[in-house]
Amino acid sequence: MDNFTFYSPTYFVFGKETENETGKYVKRFGGHKALIHYGGGSVKKSGLLDRVKKSLENDGIAYCELGGVKPNPRSGLVYEGIDLCRKEGVDFILAVGGGSTIDSAKAIAAGVPYDGDFWDFYQGKPVDEAVPIGVVLTIAAAGSEGSGDSVITKEEGMFKRSAGGDAMRPKFSILNPALTQTLPPYQTACGITDIMAHLYERYLTNTKDVEVTDRVIEGLLLTMIHEAPRVMADPNNYEARANIMWAGMLAHNNCCGVGRTQDWASHNLEHELSAMYDCAHGAGLAVAMPAVFTYNLNHDVMRFAKAAVRGWGIQMDFDNPERTAKEGIEALRSFLISLGMPKNLEELGGKEEDIEKLAYTACYGDVETGTTGGFVVLNQKDCENVYRLML
Amino acid sequence: MDNFTFYSPTYFVFGKETENETGKYVKRFGGHKALIHYGGGSVKKSGLLDRVKKSLENDGIAYCELGGVKPNPRSGLVYEGIDLCRKEGVDFILAVGGGSTIDSAKAIAAGVPYDGDFWDFYQGKPVDEAVPIGVVLTIAAAGSEGSGDSVITKEEGMFKRSAGGDAMRPKFSILNPALTQTLPPYQTACGITDIMAHLYERYLTNTKDVEVTDRVIEGLLLTMIHEAPRVMADPNNYEARANIMWAGMLAHNNCCGVGRTQDWASHNLEHELSAMYDCAHGAGLAVAMPAVFTYNLNHDVMRFAKAAVRGWGIQMDFDNPERTAKEGIEALRSFLISLGMPKNLEELGGKEEDIEKLAYTACYGDVETGTTGGFVVLNQKDCENVYRLML
Repeated sequence: MDNFTFYSPTYFVFGKETENETGKYVKRFGGHKALIHYGGGSVKKSGLLDRVKKSLENDGIAYCELGGVKPNPRSGLVYEGIDLCRKEGVDFILAVGGGSTIDSAKAIAAGVPYDGDFWDFYQGKPVDEAVPIGVVLTIAAAGSEGSGDSVITKEEGMFKRSAGGDAMRPKFSILNPALTQTLPPYQTACGITDIMAHLYERYLTNTKDVEVTDRVIEGLLLTMIHEAPRVMADPNNYEARANIMWAGMLAHNNCCGVGRTQDWASHNLEHELSAMYDCAHGAGLAVAMPAVFTYNLNHDVMRFAKAAVRGWGIQMDFDNPERTAKEGIEALRSFLISLGMPKNLEELGGKEEDIEKLAYTACYGDVETGTTGGFVVLNQKDCENVYRLML
Repeated sequence: MDNFTFYSPTYFVFGKETENETGKYVKRFGGHKALIHYGGGSVKKSGLLDRVKKSLENDGIAYCELGGVKPNPRSGLVYEGIDLCRKEGVDFILAVGGGSTIDSAKAIAAGVPYDGDFWDFYQGKPVDEAVPIGVVLTIAAAGSEGSGDSVITKEEGMFKRSAGGDAMRPKFSILNPALTQTLPPYQTACGITDIMAHLYERYLTNTKDVEVTDRVIEGLLLTMIHEAPRVMADPNNYEARANIMWAGMLAHNNCCGVGRTQDWASHNLEHELSAMYDCAHGAGLAVAMPAVFTYNLNHDVMRFAKAAVRGWGIQMDFDNPERTAKEGIEALRSFLISLGMPKNLEELGGKEEDIEKLAYTACYGDVETGTTGGFVVLNQKDCENVYRLML
């Protein structure tokens, strides 16, 4: 196991009707005037925004609002949010939404006290200071409610890049699984796929002898395999929603990813897909993961076999572990398709002729490393090959 | 799943030689003058205390010392520590040791700013304020490095009781698995048993539909079953020590225990054993657990069968689930004995004629609830029966 530090200081408030305590927690964590940041009309239509405002009012918290966050959140709205916060003297940022809204809120929070362009943080500058952030979560997916990370797309060039730092960790996150019951099934499935990707990206490691994190990842994967079909069959199943929501947090606050190298090739290749085609992140991952894993299979057959046996309950073929490993990847692919996820680039709206550009941007985009992935280091040619496996 | 809050703000620093960063973290969390609190001679003999002091000196942290913490830490030393901290103007308490030392440090930390008797906190008064605490851990066992709990024995009457509160959570915990390599095998085994008990106490729940926490507990249990024999066979196995140490933290910071009722009957019955016979906590648990589980088996056969199948890899007997459930308890018992743990009351130094008193104190001790246990509520008569199963 590698040396590591682990820090997850967010106060989680989980369960039914907990959004009515929002004001109490903004107050506890020092807020006086909040920016309520959200996406489209669903938080209005559902009445959630009104309940959150009422809770703020009950605790004497002033607020202003900025809606309009879109999936794959853009830099333009971040600049707008930073200006608004400065003008209004905001001292707390409250994200009411999913990963995109939270990530946008984190970018605003980091940008407000910073003299330069907030995009610097998305080009590698550490975030040392940020306005405190709170979350009312509306979808189990990104894990951003328990992480110090944020992903933003810069409109000039459509670069999708990430920033991170402890200052961007939410002070509190309110997780009410009932709020996710009204999601369209496709969005629920995208969230489930994202959570499963967070588990796989950590599982695919070159660090030896990490049984404890392997076992926790497997346990969370088994949970997703058990709960996802229940929630797809009955969107109002609170218990299944609750299990998925807590799994989503644990999958990404990194308690199961510490002390080991991780991969993130699927995420990185997906970022180019959603930047180019504006597809849902989860949908892109559903196409990217089986391709990346198939391409990387022979790097460590036994690790893929372990995921197959322990995660998917496949019988080990002791004479041919590669067969078991492949069966595990096929099980993942079939599972995601059964949730309604796309199965190839075409279904994402992608085209074969874009592959060269996708691979180039993945390797030589805004961050010019020339490679991607920590499990197997993929160069531009490798990325092209992986994208071709998505056809 | 029940509504819950989860808060684990401790900064964990994990890995080789991390104790040399102690001063840096005391400074980061606002300390200027520390009380170094520890147990016996082992931290001196191993050179650990010197390395910690050197690290404090390097970062300009003043310190004073209080050694002498014993297993099942006593109130007397806590009073001494509180006096010393006040006299010396200590603003940070650094526990260098295992669960007993950390628990004693937490009691001192809560007592220093409090006008009354610190024992009030161990009789139910919430801990709202405490001097900040840091930890350099020397044994994987109690999980106190990541919890807000503390257990102290009051010398008058030998009552062993617990207190808890977020203010008692360590600001940082330094976890270097190499520091545990010099432990006597018996202590290593006691620590392993304690970790497994923390998992079982959470697993035994009456809350339905808690797959995510079930699966994480099972994953951690599987880790212990895999790693414990490795570390008993080779005490210098750093990797096995590392897996156990992280599992010990995750087992008890409650990320796998939220949203569900828990049991704690084994711990409560054990507290009376170690209070009366001054046996090691883990040794007492090794005797208490199989007895409690056997007594409670018919309350929920399927839950014990699930632990047997998923934790111990026992084949499910679909015609006779009770047989599977019992096999799981026997597997636990044999496993603990294989680690060198005692198998009955006699080996703990206990006597049949004490059972009435043990059962009375468990139910009507300092806290007069008359019962113990959350999975099955055990009254005094039940407790007598359970203690008899330990003969």
